[in-house]
Amino acid sequence: MKTTTQAGADALGTRERIVRAASRLMQRQGYEGTGIKQISREAEATLGSVYHFFPGGKQELAAEAIRHGDREFADILRSVLAGEEDPAEAVAAVARAVAGELRASDWIDGCPVTATSVGTAGHAPDIQQAAAEAFERWRGLVSDKLRACGIAEEDAYELAHTVIHTLEGAELAAQVARSDEPLVIAGRHLARLITSYR
Amino acid sequence: MKTTTQAGADALGTRERIVRAASRLMQRQGYEGTGIKQISREAEATLGSVYHFFPGGKQELAAEAIRHGDREFADILRSVLAGEEDPAEAVAAVARAVAGELRASDWIDGCPVTATSVGTAGHAPDIQQAAAEAFERWRGLVSDKLRACGIAEEDAYELAHTVIHTLEGAELAAQVARSDEPLVIAGRHLARLITSYR
Repeated sequence: MKTTTQAGADALGTRERIVRAASRLMQRQGYEGTGIKQISREAEATLGSVYHFFPGGKQELAAEAIRHGDREFADILRSVLAGEEDPAEAVAAVARAVAGELRASDWIDGCPVTATSVGTAGHAPDIQQAAAEAFERWRGLVSDKLRACGIAEEDAYELAHTVIHTLEGAELAAQVARSDEPLVIAGRHLARLITSYR
Repeated sequence: MKTTTQAGADALGTRERIVRAASRLMQRQGYEGTGIKQISREAEATLGSVYHFFPGGKQELAAEAIRHGDREFADILRSVLAGEEDPAEAVAAVARAVAGELRASDWIDGCPVTATSVGTAGHAPDIQQAAAEAFERWRGLVSDKLRACGIAEEDAYELAHTVIHTLEGAELAAQVARSDEPLVIAGRHLARLITSYR
């Protein structure tokens, strides 16, 4: 017989498996290219349990999958930014980390937030909002690093926008070209831009 | 009775309507979210004529839709870049033009190339290649402008990468946040970066 705690842990385990499967599938196939049934199979969860945890269906699940991708990249960002004292070096290191992950997946796994949210504008506001919040969180982490290195608050706020958005666009270009050149160049230019504010 | 020339013009008209409908629909809904039947309805063309012009089906049509979006943005780029003598001003003007078009569509119509290609890596190489070629063509136009303004060839090549990719990422962020702030900031930083090479 299961204790209440064990049952709680199993329930959490199933929900987490569903979210991870949705995030991984949507990262590769996009929101429209991914079905609830495929998510349920990939998560080894019944369709019933998918709807139990996500009564709002695929749209609710996609927003949660974006929040999962948001937290995953936030962890990478935090760790890589903390690994270099100099903010320009730190941002160039983030560009290299993104390129390394993309290459390791044979150029298949791009940004899960973008892959899930593209094509949903105008008919899935929860997905769009979750994506906007992910970009905002990542910018906040970059901005914190820049301010900690003595860059003025307003400059750090604006630089963080361009750091995150340039990496995002360079990742898209790197993916379709199957080359890390766009990310390597982006890292170099972002470092130069940051240095010009110090 | 139609002359051969008229029949040729009609055929071209149908093909062009199909490509434009595919491009517009995929820009809003992505590749997976758009069906051949919807394209045929929107283009006021029979399913038979869609397959006549695109025997490779949706994947062939998507690659052609990307080439259409490629040419459309190339025309905008050429015209806006030519409108400002200073290359930094010219690139900031491109950022404003992208923001203006996005806002005019109520933040629905983002980059057609990205919307169509995201989520197809690994299973639609023709689509990925068409997207890579679009980015390359746009970078070529920016690079030409920078070189014409006296920036060294290698610097112009690299700057063109970051100009196009930063605008691409900033457009995605602007779309989900329903705000032109990411593009306004991107234009300012790209102008600063370009100026640092002059």
